[in-house]
Amino acid sequence: MTEQQNPSTFNPGKGAGSAVGVAILGYGTVGSQVLRLMLENADEFAHRAGGPLEVRGVAVSNVEKHNGTLADEKGLLTNDARSLISRDDVDLVVEVIGGIDYPRELVLAALRSGKSVVTANKALVAAHSAELAEAADAAGVDLYFEAAVAAAIPVVGPLRRSLAGDRITKVAGIVNGTTNFILDAMDSTGANYEDVFAEADRLGYVEADPSADVEGHDAASKAAILASLAFHTRVTADDVYCEGITKISAADIDVAKSAGYTIKLLAICERLVDDSGNESVSARVHPTLVPRSHPLASVNKSFNAIFVEAEAAGRLMFYGNGAGGNPTASAVLGDIVGASRNKVFGGRAPGESTYANLPIADFGDVPTRYHIDMNVEDRVGVLAELTQIFAAHGISLRTVRQEEQEQSARLLVITHTAREADLSATVAALAETDAVLNVNSVIRLAGE
Amino acid sequence: MTEQQNPSTFNPGKGAGSAVGVAILGYGTVGSQVLRLMLENADEFAHRAGGPLEVRGVAVSNVEKHNGTLADEKGLLTNDARSLISRDDVDLVVEVIGGIDYPRELVLAALRSGKSVVTANKALVAAHSAELAEAADAAGVDLYFEAAVAAAIPVVGPLRRSLAGDRITKVAGIVNGTTNFILDAMDSTGANYEDVFAEADRLGYVEADPSADVEGHDAASKAAILASLAFHTRVTADDVYCEGITKISAADIDVAKSAGYTIKLLAICERLVDDSGNESVSARVHPTLVPRSHPLASVNKSFNAIFVEAEAAGRLMFYGNGAGGNPTASAVLGDIVGASRNKVFGGRAPGESTYANLPIADFGDVPTRYHIDMNVEDRVGVLAELTQIFAAHGISLRTVRQEEQEQSARLLVITHTAREADLSATVAALAETDAVLNVNSVIRLAGE
Repeated sequence: MTEQQNPSTFNPGKGAGSAVGVAILGYGTVGSQVLRLMLENADEFAHRAGGPLEVRGVAVSNVEKHNGTLADEKGLLTNDARSLISRDDVDLVVEVIGGIDYPRELVLAALRSGKSVVTANKALVAAHSAELAEAADAAGVDLYFEAAVAAAIPVVGPLRRSLAGDRITKVAGIVNGTTNFILDAMDSTGANYEDVFAEADRLGYVEADPSADVEGHDAASKAAILASLAFHTRVTADDVYCEGITKISAADIDVAKSAGYTIKLLAICERLVDDSGNESVSARVHPTLVPRSHPLASVNKSFNAIFVEAEAAGRLMFYGNGAGGNPTASAVLGDIVGASRNKVFGGRAPGESTYANLPIADFGDVPTRYHIDMNVEDRVGVLAELTQIFAAHGISLRTVRQEEQEQSARLLVITHTAREADLSATVAALAETDAVLNVNSVIRLAGE
Repeated sequence: MTEQQNPSTFNPGKGAGSAVGVAILGYGTVGSQVLRLMLENADEFAHRAGGPLEVRGVAVSNVEKHNGTLADEKGLLTNDARSLISRDDVDLVVEVIGGIDYPRELVLAALRSGKSVVTANKALVAAHSAELAEAADAAGVDLYFEAAVAAAIPVVGPLRRSLAGDRITKVAGIVNGTTNFILDAMDSTGANYEDVFAEADRLGYVEADPSADVEGHDAASKAAILASLAFHTRVTADDVYCEGITKISAADIDVAKSAGYTIKLLAICERLVDDSGNESVSARVHPTLVPRSHPLASVNKSFNAIFVEAEAAGRLMFYGNGAGGNPTASAVLGDIVGASRNKVFGGRAPGESTYANLPIADFGDVPTRYHIDMNVEDRVGVLAELTQIFAAHGISLRTVRQEEQEQSARLLVITHTAREADLSATVAALAETDAVLNVNSVIRLAGE
C-alpha cells in the first residue's frame, strides 16, 4: 500500500555524538557557500544534527581552477567524485553540480551505496524522480531536495510534512527569479525584452545558457516537483505544458498595464475534477496576466512566491529569495542537518509519495482564460462577426476593448474560463478570418 | 552536548501497515474538524502515515452535550480522558482542549506513558515547554505543536527543519487573527475600538474571554514559541514584553494613517548583539506603526503573516489563515501524520533545541522607536524646550509634525531607534514638563 514510503531496511542510527561524514559534489556559487557556512557554524550544526558534521571532500572537475579557495586551503579538493562518494567515512552526499546526466550517475551511486543525498538540482529531480526515489528506498536512505524549488523558501518541507494532513487543490507561483526580474523591469521601465535581457545579463541575473530560464524549462522542472508533492502523483518535467517569456513585448506589458494587470511567468499546478468526479493533475508554466491587486503582482525583482490552496488550510503564501548562492545554501544546509540527524538518531524523512497516481490531464482539457490582442478591419459589423466566432466555440467574453488606429482597429478581448483547446481553436479560427488582420498576442490570465 | 534532542530510548517503529491508535482530547471547533477529516480522508492518511490511523476515542467533559455529533454516532465519546490515554491501543494523543492546567496533566500523562502528543495549545507550550520536552525526551516520543502558532501556516516545521541550517536573526509578524480583524476594521472604517470590538464579537471573531486576544497574551505565547525555535533558547510567555490593543483609539489610527502608517499588533522576536558581541534574545508583543508599503500592512481581516530573517536565506514571509477550526485542524492533522509515521517507521522529530541558551534581554535595553502624540502649549519656544528633553536623553528625532488646535498645539514626534528605557524615560520627562499638556499616546514603530 505504501511501498514508495517504506524503507526495506531500517537504519537505527549511529548514536548521539557520532560524526557524520559529508561529501560535497560541486564547488560553484552554492557549493562554496555550503562549505563556508558548514565550517563557520560547525558548532551550531553539531548541536542541531546531534553530532559533528565533517566535510570529507569537495569534488570538482578541475582542481587547479579552485586554487586558493577555502576548499583548497582545507585540502578538501578532489577531481575523483566516485572515490569520494565511496569512502567508508562518507555518510551523506551533497550534489550541487547542476546538469542532469553526470549528477544522476553520481547521485544514484551514492544512494545505492547507502549514502543519503541532498541535492539542489531541480532538473535532475524533475526528470528522474522515480529512479532516484527507488534507489533511496532500496537502500533505506534519504533524498532531500528543498533547494530544488525556490531556494531558501521552505516549500518542499511544508508540502511533504506540514500539509500532509490536508488535501491540496492548487499550487501556483513565481518560481524563477531571472524571468521575474526581466518581466518586472519591463513593467516598471516600459523597455522591450531584448534591452531588459541585456541589462539583466550585465547584472549577473542570467545564466551562461539562458534558455532554461527564459524558455520556462527551469520553472517547468519546479512545477513538476511541486505537483508531485502536492498531489501524491508522479509528475515529470515532460508532463508540464511550458511556454517561456521570449515573445512578451513591451506592447503586451503596456496593454496589460492599461487593463489593470501585470505579466508574470507562473507555474500553476492544479488538481482537476471533471463532471463525473474523476480527478486529474495539471501542471503548466506560461506568461500570465495577473491583476495588480493580487499579491503575486507585487512580487518584484528576482523574488519568488508560491501560493498553496488546500481544503482545510485555505490559501497560504510563501515568499522570499528564490535564487542565489546564500539562499540556496540555506536550503541545502537545512537538508544536510535533517539528513544528518537521521543518520545519527535513525529514522527517515518522508520519501516519494505517489499513491494517488492521478492521470495527467490533457492540456486541451485544462480550464484557462485568454487575453487576445488583435488588429482588425475598421468597419461596421466586424465586432459582431468576431463575437460570433467566440460564441460558436462556446467561449463567453468578459471584456472587449476597441482602440482606433490608422486604417485598422485594435481589439483587446478577455474571455471567461473555458477549455484550453476551445480557446486555442477560437484563436485559430479568428486568425483565418478576413476581418482579423493580425493576432498580435495571446496571453493567459489567472488570479481573479 | 545535545541532551535535549537525544531520545534515551529509540523506538524502531511498529512496521509498515501497522495501525496507529489515536485519542482525541477535546471536541470543540478544532477537535470536531480533526475527527471529521480523519474519518473522511482515512485512506489518504493511511498512505501518508504508512498505516491506518484509528481513532480510539474522543474525551470530553460532558458526553451528553455532544449527543448526535459524529463522535457520538461513532461511539467514540468518553468523559474519562485518563483511561482513554492509558489504553494499550492508543499510540498518539491529540490535545485540543485549551487552557493550561488540565491539558498539562493529560499531556504529561500521555508522554510519560510513551504516547506521542500533538497539541494546538499555545498557552500550554509557551508556559511549560521545558517540562513537556523533558517528558517527551525521557520516553523517546514526539511532541508536535505546529497548530500552536498561526494555525495552518507552516512555521514551526520550517523553523525546526527547513531553516535548521541557517542562523535566524529575527521573526516578526501578525499572529493573532482577532486583534488584526479589529485593527483592520478600525483602519478601514475609522470607527473606535469599542464599536469595532462589538461588531467582531457579533461576527464570532471574539472568544468568550477576549482578554487573551486583546491584551496580547495569545500573541505573547506564540512569540515565546517562535523565539525558542528561532534562537535555540528556552523562552517562555513570562519572558515576553506584552502590550495589547485596548488603548488604541480612532485618533491613533487616524494620525498613523495621515503619516503613511497602519497599526498592527506585532510579535517581534530578535537576536540582539551588543557592542561587545554578546548575544541575547528579545521577544515582545505590542501595537506597532507599520509603513503602509510594508507587506505586513496589507495583511487584513483575521489573516496572519510571519516574517523570518536569516543570515543566508535573507527575508522570508509566510502568510495565511491563522485561526479557525479547519485551518487549525489542517496543522493538527499534518502533525498527526508526522507523529504516526514515526510510530510506524521509527525515528523522532527534532525535539526542543535549547543549546544556545542565550540570555533574555532586559526590555529596557531593546532598541525600539516611538511615535509620540502630545498636546503642548501653543507658544514660542515650546518646540525648542521639548527637543532639548529628547536630546538630553540621547534620542534623535526622525520627524516632528505640529498641528494647530484651539488653545493648544498637537505635536506628533517620530524618533530614531534608541534604547527602550531611554525612550520611556524621555516620555516620562515630557509628561512632567509644564509645556506638555497631555501625552495622548505612545506607540512603537517597526518595519522601516
